[in-house]
Amino acid sequence: MDIDTLLLPENATAEEIAARSGDVHVADIVEILNARPVDQRLAILARMPVERAAATFDQAGLDDPARLIAGLPADLAPKILRGVSIDRSAEIFRALREPDRGRLLGALDTDAKSGLDRVLAYSPHTAGGIMTTEFVSVPSTYTVGETIEHIRRVESTRETVYAIYVQDPETHALVQSISLRRLITGDPAAPVLSVAYPRPPITVAPDADREDVGRLISKYDLLAMPVVDAGRRVIGIVTVDDVIDAMVAETTEDVQKFGGVEALNAPYMTIGFGQMIYKRAGWLCALFLSEMLTASAMQHFEDELEKAVVLTLFIPLIMSSGGNSGSQATSLLIRAIALGEVRLRDWWRVALREIPTGLTLGAILGVIGFARISLWQKLGIYDYGEHWPLIALTVGAALVGIVTFGSLSGSMLPFALKKLGFDPASASAPFVATLVDVTGLVIYFTVALAILHGTLL
Amino acid sequence: MDIDTLLLPENATAEEIAARSGDVHVADIVEILNARPVDQRLAILARMPVERAAATFDQAGLDDPARLIAGLPADLAPKILRGVSIDRSAEIFRALREPDRGRLLGALDTDAKSGLDRVLAYSPHTAGGIMTTEFVSVPSTYTVGETIEHIRRVESTRETVYAIYVQDPETHALVQSISLRRLITGDPAAPVLSVAYPRPPITVAPDADREDVGRLISKYDLLAMPVVDAGRRVIGIVTVDDVIDAMVAETTEDVQKFGGVEALNAPYMTIGFGQMIYKRAGWLCALFLSEMLTASAMQHFEDELEKAVVLTLFIPLIMSSGGNSGSQATSLLIRAIALGEVRLRDWWRVALREIPTGLTLGAILGVIGFARISLWQKLGIYDYGEHWPLIALTVGAALVGIVTFGSLSGSMLPFALKKLGFDPASASAPFVATLVDVTGLVIYFTVALAILHGTLL
Repeated sequence: MDIDTLLLPENATAEEIAARSGDVHVADIVEILNARPVDQRLAILARMPVERAAATFDQAGLDDPARLIAGLPADLAPKILRGVSIDRSAEIFRALREPDRGRLLGALDTDAKSGLDRVLAYSPHTAGGIMTTEFVSVPSTYTVGETIEHIRRVESTRETVYAIYVQDPETHALVQSISLRRLITGDPAAPVLSVAYPRPPITVAPDADREDVGRLISKYDLLAMPVVDAGRRVIGIVTVDDVIDAMVAETTEDVQKFGGVEALNAPYMTIGFGQMIYKRAGWLCALFLSEMLTASAMQHFEDELEKAVVLTLFIPLIMSSGGNSGSQATSLLIRAIALGEVRLRDWWRVALREIPTGLTLGAILGVIGFARISLWQKLGIYDYGEHWPLIALTVGAALVGIVTFGSLSGSMLPFALKKLGFDPASASAPFVATLVDVTGLVIYFTVALAILHGTLL
Repeated sequence: MDIDTLLLPENATAEEIAARSGDVHVADIVEILNARPVDQRLAILARMPVERAAATFDQAGLDDPARLIAGLPADLAPKILRGVSIDRSAEIFRALREPDRGRLLGALDTDAKSGLDRVLAYSPHTAGGIMTTEFVSVPSTYTVGETIEHIRRVESTRETVYAIYVQDPETHALVQSISLRRLITGDPAAPVLSVAYPRPPITVAPDADREDVGRLISKYDLLAMPVVDAGRRVIGIVTVDDVIDAMVAETTEDVQKFGGVEALNAPYMTIGFGQMIYKRAGWLCALFLSEMLTASAMQHFEDELEKAVVLTLFIPLIMSSGGNSGSQATSLLIRAIALGEVRLRDWWRVALREIPTGLTLGAILGVIGFARISLWQKLGIYDYGEHWPLIALTVGAALVGIVTFGSLSGSMLPFALKKLGFDPASASAPFVATLVDVTGLVIYFTVALAILHGTLL
């Protein structure tokens, strides 16, 4: 059967959807809800069985969960929240405003509240902030059989049971992490540690960056990463599906930032007009103000412009080539740094690669530019005047300089940002273009002065 | 213990590394190998226990596995390949050249070869091309206990045992997929289907795009996705760790493409100089040739330029604002389309959002531009001549038009590419900037002609 046929008809009523919510995957319920106005979403959720509503709130894809939980009847909301995993609850409570936040937090039982407080204490960009405290742990004195029996009992209340954390019975420090697949192959009477690999478990501290956690989970092909405190006690786990959700969010942020927009943190179609302007106007104005330096640079070369208006014809062409080569270099280095292929201290190696690359690319464009001007002149399409070979030479030589400068500064920008403590991915294509534009003009006019001095200038 | 202390010292010999390869995680062995020259990598791999070498080749992070397997002794390589999973073997064989490819393929046993042939028949961008044929399936006549017993026997030869595929005993069509966690909670004597959720399993066809598979795995929080043929028989599975690897690769490709580079498909520091030029020169030249239209546009307005050189001062500022606003809109829409927030048929909704957004952003920049010129004039920093209020008005009005055009065309470009059958993510910031530049010049000079006619022009 196709995924689509599992979905309920588009015109189904709240009662019908609520009644059939057990037959379709909860991720599909989320899709149905997201497509409807808030009052209908609330009507459906209020009519769903409580545990099904909780499973719906547990899905990362559900839009605006804080608004929905706050909008549900005051006696129903805490019952639903009880069934939502700690990591997702933390996400919801972070978005809740007072007085709803206090009201709902007060309605949780002590266990859930203490788990939640622990997660809320960390930034949502860290391991501690996206971890869940619902994991399986057993003392190292257990046998394989006892461990499996324990898992059977607690399975329904744990986010994952595929990784089992074996603790020291005294200190509760983590001794080993064991996979369920290895566990079921073991002899039930043997000690649980008999099925462990003889290697120290991989762990992270609660303040580890969530991107680093994702990298480690991906590197070691883990299904969950234990988060340990200073005493090496497991305080929570980050599961692979949370990492995937975080990765999708990070990719969106990275692409938006590279395009010169502040991260929207909301779907394009749902964000308000005011927010949209706010997220875009900031960078646009900052870039505009910086780009004003180009006008100042041009004013500086006013005399040359008056004497040789023909030079202005190539300003857009030359400036954009600098920006384009810079944008290429920046995108390559942002990813190379993000993937750990290149470290901060490798900046000079990168510079040594980008200079010859820029010179070569600049020479290629320079030859094309020279050929274009010569061709137009010879074919009579345009008359660049008697000094046209010198003008063609100026354009060609300026391109070599500008593309080299663009490649070099575009590649160094992510390093500079990282060194200054910013995310290298804040380097956007418009940012690089602006950086290169002013220098590009100065290079162009300097080359022109050198080549055309005594003739046109 | 910290991850770093698990690593072997940097100056360890091939013998030492090979001997200690069982003590460290195989992902760390990969890191050690990647940092060394090929001859040392081969020396270490040749000395490692065969199953450990196979586990090393199984890691997606190992650089250049085809070159390594081809470089190992002819009797050792097939032994190692036997222990490598089918999906990874397929990746390696895709990169192998003749005669090594034929030699190694011939050395595989019939079972492995038939599994491999099935995967190699599909493109590496599809579910069929990244699936593994090593999964767990049982007939629907099995009990829970029999299924667990079966898993215990085959565990070591399967990529994942966390998803179990229950088949019709006659047709072998997929009846249900069951998770191991549900299975172990079941009564051993009960039929295996007793622990299944009463919902049809989620499946994909072998030609499904790998990005779509990733989206579905993420949406349904699956650990593996079954790939089924026309008869609904499971022919392979795509596991979550493969999806993560694919997602990281796609993000890199997307960022590089957005920067105007062809996807490198190799780490920045290891790619050859010729390859680097090749990947960058193509787009750079294409953009350069398109951008030449700006020179033609400028030539068209030559008379105006001669009369009012002052207008040239603002060309870089105005052009870059168009490019920046276009780049913002493109990055937002590339992600909105990739995440399925916006569909092709929504293009007009997006246009209706971008036009007022562009007008507002353009007005903001226009006011700043007008103020800048007025201020410089009043403060005596620069003299724009007697008609300076009209020049300031020209710049301000042109900015409104250009930013609106930039936002609109930047947002429509990903739709146009998708409609034409290209990846919307091929829309790069430089591409948009080039698109907007020529029109931007035309808008600027047209506005100038309208406002300055009879005075400067």
